[in-house]
Order: sequence, then C-alpha cells, then structure tokens
Amino acid sequence: MQTVKVKEAIKMKSEIIAVGTELLLGQVVNTNATFLSEQLADLGIDVYYQTVVGDNPTRLEELIQLAETRSELIILCGGLGPTEDDLTKEVTAKHLGRELIQNTEGYKKLLTFFETTKRKMTENNLQQSQIIEGGIPLPNRTGLALGTFFQTEDHVYILLPGPPSELKPMFIEQARPLLEEKFPSEEKLISKVLRFYGIGESRLVTELKDLIETQINPTIAPYAKPNEVTLRLTVKTKDAHAGNQALLALEERIQERVGEYFYGYGDDNSLPKVVVDLLKERNQTITAAESLTAGAFQAALGDIPGVSAVFPGGFTTYSLETKANFLTIDRHFLEKYGTVSQECAEQMALQARKLAGTDYGISFTGVAGPDELEGQPVGTVWIALAYGDEAVISQKYRFTRDRAAIRHSAVMQGFDLLRRQVLRKK
Amino acid sequence: MQTVKVKEAIKMKSEIIAVGTELLLGQVVNTNATFLSEQLADLGIDVYYQTVVGDNPTRLEELIQLAETRSELIILCGGLGPTEDDLTKEVTAKHLGRELIQNTEGYKKLLTFFETTKRKMTENNLQQSQIIEGGIPLPNRTGLALGTFFQTEDHVYILLPGPPSELKPMFIEQARPLLEEKFPSEEKLISKVLRFYGIGESRLVTELKDLIETQINPTIAPYAKPNEVTLRLTVKTKDAHAGNQALLALEERIQERVGEYFYGYGDDNSLPKVVVDLLKERNQTITAAESLTAGAFQAALGDIPGVSAVFPGGFTTYSLETKANFLTIDRHFLEKYGTVSQECAEQMALQARKLAGTDYGISFTGVAGPDELEGQPVGTVWIALAYGDEAVISQKYRFTRDRAAIRHSAVMQGFDLLRRQVLRKK
Repeated sequence: MQTVKVKEAIKMKSEIIAVGTELLLGQVVNTNATFLSEQLADLGIDVYYQTVVGDNPTRLEELIQLAETRSELIILCGGLGPTEDDLTKEVTAKHLGRELIQNTEGYKKLLTFFETTKRKMTENNLQQSQIIEGGIPLPNRTGLALGTFFQTEDHVYILLPGPPSELKPMFIEQARPLLEEKFPSEEKLISKVLRFYGIGESRLVTELKDLIETQINPTIAPYAKPNEVTLRLTVKTKDAHAGNQALLALEERIQERVGEYFYGYGDDNSLPKVVVDLLKERNQTITAAESLTAGAFQAALGDIPGVSAVFPGGFTTYSLETKANFLTIDRHFLEKYGTVSQECAEQMALQARKLAGTDYGISFTGVAGPDELEGQPVGTVWIALAYGDEAVISQKYRFTRDRAAIRHSAVMQGFDLLRRQVLRKK
Repeated sequence: MQTVKVKEAIKMKSEIIAVGTELLLGQVVNTNATFLSEQLADLGIDVYYQTVVGDNPTRLEELIQLAETRSELIILCGGLGPTEDDLTKEVTAKHLGRELIQNTEGYKKLLTFFETTKRKMTENNLQQSQIIEGGIPLPNRTGLALGTFFQTEDHVYILLPGPPSELKPMFIEQARPLLEEKFPSEEKLISKVLRFYGIGESRLVTELKDLIETQINPTIAPYAKPNEVTLRLTVKTKDAHAGNQALLALEERIQERVGEYFYGYGDDNSLPKVVVDLLKERNQTITAAESLTAGAFQAALGDIPGVSAVFPGGFTTYSLETKANFLTIDRHFLEKYGTVSQECAEQMALQARKLAGTDYGISFTGVAGPDELEGQPVGTVWIALAYGDEAVISQKYRFTRDRAAIRHSAVMQGFDLLRRQVLRKK
C-alpha cells in the first residue's frame, strides 16, 4: 500500500490511537476517541478508525506503521505521563528517527509545580516536559505532560495526554488551531439534527429509503436511542447560505413523509425539554400522579432548568392506599375497577390536576414487572391526561422488554401525549 | 504472519471490533468495548486491541483479515439491525464463505413483536432474525437482532448487537457460557466487588496505597462512578477454596481501613437496592417529599423490583404552594423560614411520614441551579429523615458541579442517610 502525501490531500483522512492497558482491561471508557472524532468531524476531517492498544512498544509501533498506510493524520492519546508505562512519546520518536528533547517552557512549569505543591520531583517527571525533536510543543494548561504536533512530508502526528481534562483543552486551544492554520479548508460541514418520537428506526429508514440511498450531499444519518430516533443531515459546502438552503430543502422532503413523528431539533434537546418549552410559551402548568413510573416523569421534568414555572409538584401513588388517600379517590372505586385500568388512570389524572390546580394532570398506572398484576401482563400501561373543563383522554399501551425499559417507555409516551395535546389546544 | 490455532491456544488472545459510523463521528461513546473488555479480563482472556470501523464493507473485511493474524477470538459488535448500514453479519458471512439463514425461533419472536405492538413489519426487519450458517444463534432477550457464535479451526467469531441494553445480556447469558464451556481453563479467576459510598477514589486509593502497590494475586482494581467507588478484588487460582480464603483475608484488611464507607457487594448492586433489601428484612416502609430532586429519589426506589413491599408512594413538592397544600404545612411557617431551610426539610419529612403512614419519611429541599434561590448558593441541599415517635434528623450539604450532578448527589446522599439510620435502629 502507498502512503498519501499530506500536501496533496484534498481531504484528510485520520485515525485515532488511544494507548493504555487500562482501556483494554475495561477499567476506563475511551471518551477521548469520542471527543476527538466529534472535533474532527467538525473540521471536515474524516475519521476512518479508532484503535486502542496497550502499553506495549512493539504493538504500538506496528499500529503506527499500519496507520501510516491508511491515514494522513494520526492522533495518539495517552502515555505521556511520568511512569514506566508511558511510552507513546518514546515509541513515536524512535519510529520517526528523532530524539526526545527538553522543552524549556515545559521544564520551568514542572519546576514551579513541584515548588508550589512542595512535592518531591523524581527523575521520571522530566519525561513530561520532553517533546519530539523538530515538533511543535503543545502546552498543557491543565496538567504537566506536553503534547507534540509533528509534521512530515506524508503525515501529521499529534500526541495528546490521556486524561480528558488535559486532552480536551490541549486539542481545542493548541492542536485544532494548528490544523486549521496548516490545512485550511474552504469547505465547511453544516449539520442539523431532527428528532423523532413514536417511530422505530427501521420504519423511519424505510419511509426515507430513496432519500437515504441517493444521499450524497447533504447526507442523512439515522441514529436510534431508547425511545427515540434522530436524523443528522450534513452538508459539505463552500457557501453557507447555499448549504443551509440544501438542508432546508431536504428537511422539507423528510417532514412531508414523517413529520407526524418529528418533535424538535438539535443534539442537546429532548422530549421533556420541548414539552417544558411549549408549556412555558403558553403559560400553562402540569402535575402528575405516578404509579408504576414512581416519580420518573416528574424527575425528568425536574432535569430541565427553570421548570418551576410550569411544574409545582405532584404525586407518587404506588399502592392502592396512596391512590385513595393522596388523591382522594374512593377506595371502593379502585377496588371495583382495579388499579391497572382506564377508570383508575382517568381518576388519578383528574384528581391530581384538581389538587395541584394546574392546567394539565397526567397519570401513569400499569405493570412494570417482573410479575403480572391484577391478571394483567407485564408491560400493560394506562396513561391519562386531564385538561380543560374536567376533560380527560386516556390510552392503553403495551410496552416490551424489562422493568427499566417499560418504565422509561411509559414516561416518554406520557411526554409525547402531553406534547400533542398542548399543540392541539393553541 | 501466521494465524494461531484455537485448539492449541493455552491462553486466548482476543480483540473487539465495534462497527458503526456514529462512533467515528463521535456521536456515541464506545461503552461496549469497555464492557466486553471487563468481561474478557474476568474470563482470563487477554484483549490486545479494540478497534472502531465505520459502516463500510471493504474496511470491515480488511479489519477482520487483520484481526485473524493476531487474535483467536474476534468479537464484533454493532451492525446487526435492519437498516442499510447494518452490514456486519453480511460481511462476516461472506468473508467466511457462508450464507445467512433465517433462524426459526428468532423469526417467531420477530412476528410476535410486530403483532403485539401492532407495528408494521418491513422486509428489512427479516435481516434481524438471520444468523451465519453453521453458527450457534445467540437469542436476544431484550431486542430483535440475533447474535451468532461461529467457530472455525483457527478462530472464534462472536457477533453481538450494538445497543448496550441488548449486547450486555446477550454476552452474559449466551456468549460467555459458550466460551466457558468450549474453552475451559484450569485456572479460574474469582472476583469480588466491594462498593463504597461517601469516599472519593483518590482518598480510597491513598488509604490502601501499600496494599495496591504490592498487589500480585489477588489484585485490587478501583473504579470510580458518579457518587460511588468500587474495588474489584480478583484472585487467579486452581483451588477455589484457597482463592476465596485469599480474597477474604484481603477484604478484611481493606474493611479495617475503609469499612466505614462500605455498603455492599457485587456488580449488579446499588445503594437503592441495598436500602430496599434492608427495609424488606425489617418489614419497614419509606415515603418521601421531594423538592429539588422532584421525584428522582422515588423513581430510584421504583427501579427495584418488589419495592411495593416497602414504598407505598410519596410527594413531589417543587413549589411553596405544594409544600403547603400537599403536606399540610403552614404557609406562614414556610414563608418565615424559607423553603431551603432545616425547618422546612424537617416539616416535609415529618408530614410526609404522617400522611403516608410509613416508618420513615425522607425529604429533600435545596438549590439545583442554575440560579441561586432564597439567597442560598447553587448546590445547597437540606435532607431530613423522620422516624419513630416524631423523631427527625436533618443535615445540610453543599454539592458541586451541574444541576444533574447536584440532584443525583442529593438522591444518593438520601439513600446513605436512610441506610445508616435503618442499620442503627435494629
């Protein structure tokens, strides 16, 4: 295989190598690869591989050789510290036929650190202020180990420290500006995330099959999380206005087909957040009475800053007694219909709304499992929503999988039911 | 390079390949690699590489070829779903010169799922119930896509689904027993997990410094999660009795130093689970009145199967009005002392206990942020616990970091307070 010259590269290919036996033992999650991948996507640099290798010089060097055959940009993270295991800098320098040299600024910082903290500096600490000869030092604002940015004719190597608290600022403040300066890209990536509830990934993809299959620019990337699916639309463009227009046109075609399930935009959004925002806009309030979900709906409301404007509080009524006592529902009524029933769900919603004096009252009652209840199978859930002048709607669901999934599905379904009702009543 | 025969392998080498462009875009963290690495370490199988590759058939097949030169066990995860991108099964089958065949059990489950949930099955769903011809199907208890365990003379391939909620049970319940059966090892790893609350990882490690530094067999691996630290003690032995004795002796030395913070054993344990078990043993019950935590304490109780024996229900009292109305606390009292106060916390706990008729009543009130409240800084939390004959204890805390962390810390602190009180009053 041939290596690709960096300077000829129209579009840089990259890969990320994380070094550390603790990763291979499953003691640490490789969040550095996730962070760096996101950053590189943002720069329009494709990431083709993420690899984790242990603190072993032979395997690390083999991996660097392999990486050189398939990527122009190689980011190595971890193994810059002072211990025996920390061999990334040494192995990379040897591979490149370079020495490690002391960096004056880094060395001064090291001395100051040990003076200030009155700790004893050991000889191996000196490794931390070394960089690869001929490389650009990457100062470490939040730690001691220096990084290196090293460029050859064919490749760029960036060495970063392992702790995320050091790696992140070093990449954002030091390495990223160097990449942008040395490899300026006229093309930018612009993306937009559409969020859907109530449609599975496979059905969403089927509905959009032709759009997804013919995607070139913009691209469409579906992603399924528990109880929701997102679509990331990404356009590569030199012209931001034209790029945004292309995204808008694609979004319109998607909304025509599956807009029924669309609830919001953005990476940092959620169904509870959208519902709280809708209620805020309308100056409306919500309460809840929760049986099987046991407070999970209200806790999800509580996650949203500023929720106090729309949520004064509510009830967890797990037993028949608390349904009767807290919500002042007639005990005989509950015994007659059972607690996993439409009648019970509706009374819970109506009474919660009345007692809290809110615009909406939602209730959840059902069978979270592992055992069935009142002869009803695990996963059976009634959700009711009271609003307006004693009005109430209710719906029976049958959720699958385990206890945690059933409870989470019920909560999300409750948020969607509420969202649709709020939108209906302008 | 030569491939290594599986049957000759004294000690199996393995690697983990995660397939998914969403991982290379930094949209998802590769927690599967962490989980599988931990499991394999536990089985005494060395993991040499973790690799992430995108949804690209050529690169995936190249990677499988490479993996075969360096590992006997190759675990592939992700890409078993119903969409175009999901190509792991197809690429692996083609590489092995095998067909994909429908698995009858898996197919039946698929049909039942779509019947029960009344959702429309599309043709691409059929991919999910296929396995590689000649392989052992790995049923998916929590989802639809089947896994495959495939063995050749030289290698073992295990294909697992991408969602952690499906991958974990499939590995533990299906793949792991197959590995143990087919590759029995004379030496066993026996491990024991000790769980601690209320002590940070660095302090725990400092207290046990000499034990950790001299560890050989058994080993001590500390692991920090939000609001708790676990220690995994692992011994490698041919003699189960001697191994257990060694673990016990090490545990005693650890308990002498940090037993104050120890709350339980095991991987699948949690502080809420331990508390629910303690209450069950004692036939005691708990209720809660939650302000800043807004139901999160009760939702955590609700996570535990069988919690109805100890938890009848409780209150979310986010506003001053609901504190006054739901808990029948005098409004003027709340206005006088403020809602972020010892007085308010104690009244909330006492009144919740009285209204629910439980043995214990716990309350949470404080400032989750982002803004301060009643002149009190973000992170200020009062927790009170009512019990016995109108008795109440209360404590002020100051938690750090963001809204989510403050609320989670408060909930965990509440469970620890309750645990200590339950243990005190035999």
